[in-house]
Amino acid sequence: MPESEVLRELMMKGKDVEKYMIEVLRINASKDFIEVLEHQILAGGKRLRPALTIIVCEALGGKKEDAMYPAAAIELIHNFSLIVDDIIDHSILRRGKPTVWKKYGLEFAILASLHYREAIEKAILKSPNPLKIADLVSDTIMYMIEGERLDILFEQFGREGDYFSKYQFRSVSEDDYLRMIGGKTASLISASCKAGAIAADASDEEIEKFGVFGWNIGLAFQITDDYLDLFGDPKKLGKEPGKDIKEHKLGNIMIVYALQELDKQSADRILEILKKQSPTDDDINEAISLIRKTSAVDRAMKKAENLINRALEEISTFPENQYIKILKQLAIFAYKRTF
Amino acid sequence: MPESEVLRELMMKGKDVEKYMIEVLRINASKDFIEVLEHQILAGGKRLRPALTIIVCEALGGKKEDAMYPAAAIELIHNFSLIVDDIIDHSILRRGKPTVWKKYGLEFAILASLHYREAIEKAILKSPNPLKIADLVSDTIMYMIEGERLDILFEQFGREGDYFSKYQFRSVSEDDYLRMIGGKTASLISASCKAGAIAADASDEEIEKFGVFGWNIGLAFQITDDYLDLFGDPKKLGKEPGKDIKEHKLGNIMIVYALQELDKQSADRILEILKKQSPTDDDINEAISLIRKTSAVDRAMKKAENLINRALEEISTFPENQYIKILKQLAIFAYKRTF
Repeated sequence: MPESEVLRELMMKGKDVEKYMIEVLRINASKDFIEVLEHQILAGGKRLRPALTIIVCEALGGKKEDAMYPAAAIELIHNFSLIVDDIIDHSILRRGKPTVWKKYGLEFAILASLHYREAIEKAILKSPNPLKIADLVSDTIMYMIEGERLDILFEQFGREGDYFSKYQFRSVSEDDYLRMIGGKTASLISASCKAGAIAADASDEEIEKFGVFGWNIGLAFQITDDYLDLFGDPKKLGKEPGKDIKEHKLGNIMIVYALQELDKQSADRILEILKKQSPTDDDINEAISLIRKTSAVDRAMKKAENLINRALEEISTFPENQYIKILKQLAIFAYKRTF
Repeated sequence: MPESEVLRELMMKGKDVEKYMIEVLRINASKDFIEVLEHQILAGGKRLRPALTIIVCEALGGKKEDAMYPAAAIELIHNFSLIVDDIIDHSILRRGKPTVWKKYGLEFAILASLHYREAIEKAILKSPNPLKIADLVSDTIMYMIEGERLDILFEQFGREGDYFSKYQFRSVSEDDYLRMIGGKTASLISASCKAGAIAADASDEEIEKFGVFGWNIGLAFQITDDYLDLFGDPKKLGKEPGKDIKEHKLGNIMIVYALQELDKQSADRILEILKKQSPTDDDINEAISLIRKTSAVDRAMKKAENLINRALEEISTFPENQYIKILKQLAIFAYKRTF
């Protein structure tokens, strides 16, 4: 099967999860609140994470039905985090539509995000091995919170307060960066895989292997995301180019690597642009071309490739079947994708 | 035992829960985040809800140790809701200390509140009958969210946006009010009791009875809170008098009842004061004395008394023991309290 077809099939698997998401979101929700709750998930999404849950479950001999509520929980966690991130980053658009807080107001967006967490709990309670999934979900969300906390502290402008000033990062090492994206991105992709293994009633060792597989893919996925943020096609991505720079984020691996290589003057110039309230297109292009002069992109892509190889190695001992094959192709997609 | 002593003993039971709260809050929390997380619970509190959990467990023949994690979960839910309410209401002080968002910034307060929810999950997972407690907790938090949503929609000034305008209440009936406080207050007090019964491995029927007991006490507790908000001693309460009026809230039963009785001119005057951005002390005193002219206070206190009687009736079939006795005294305190 050609790669694009694998992906299409995968995404269709992921789409099946939507009715389960809506089912649990509507539990205990008053009629007038449902509109607020469904706005985020009706805006769309690739549903790659729940597809991972389903395929890992199938790869281990589990039934697809057993993976549906765990997969719904996973995709709801993702959407829950998007609602919260958009509040924290003051983002007004997501997938071309107004964000939840922008459309419904901060107070109702906060309440909606909290309701998401309880809908996730309901999905967990309908899952096989609910206690294992509950423990996984709580760890995962805690890691995501820590990732988001670091992501904020890596910002170079726009935050206030004593706590921020005290803990803000003035420089970010590769380790700091990996800690941040580990929480922000890899933890949920790892959990997507683990949840599938738990749904298939796999052994702890198997669950752990798929966790490592997902973690490494997640890191590679985020590195690609960082690349696309600076160099990708805005039309394909549905977001403005250089969003990380506009959001003053030092937590982009291209920037982390570039700052290691550039002379002081060029490095300071990048930091200066990150500190600008509203950088112009020229500023952003200047920062991007300074990054281009270094080996940051090559190093980052090499890093992503190594992570993918590490992921593939982790599941190499499982007997090959059609689902394992898809997972391997998916791993490649995580760092070769253009959207 | 005199009433004050019962309460003191009760509150000491509640205090025992603090080390369990801290234990679960610290799970997966980075060193730099713990300060933010602990600010809310270190500010104090009467710990009445966890005391209820422990006493109900003991009343049903359960061991105190079995109730500690469920009790910690309950008190963490309460504190979680306080962090969120303070964000939504822009409150800057709580128990004489700066609120979490005021001290640490909105973004970190939001992240802290989300971490609370996961610490609650960890406490659930350490509880007896964790699946039953998990289901109870998710229902309860959903009801609290709905209560808070209604409380906001009952406000007469200070909110913006199409959603608010569309769903705002211009008048609040007794039923609307009970729906709001049912979610905001009664649901968690009911859950406090149910969690104790679940920890004691009680039957579903017993759990349900204590749920009804707690629900009615919760409603009475909130009615007393509404009274104290307008007529209580600010020093004893540690909050400013007439906070509900300053916060433009139509969701206070004294106001709901008074508006039913007052002539149009006086009723309009109260609504006018509720719509003022910054009502003066004279405004607040005027509103309070208009309410005083009606039978609102008498009716509300009668309502609270009926609710307490309903609560007491619900547990009247349980054989009397020292714990049941305390629960009955506590029920009386819920509406006779002055702080």
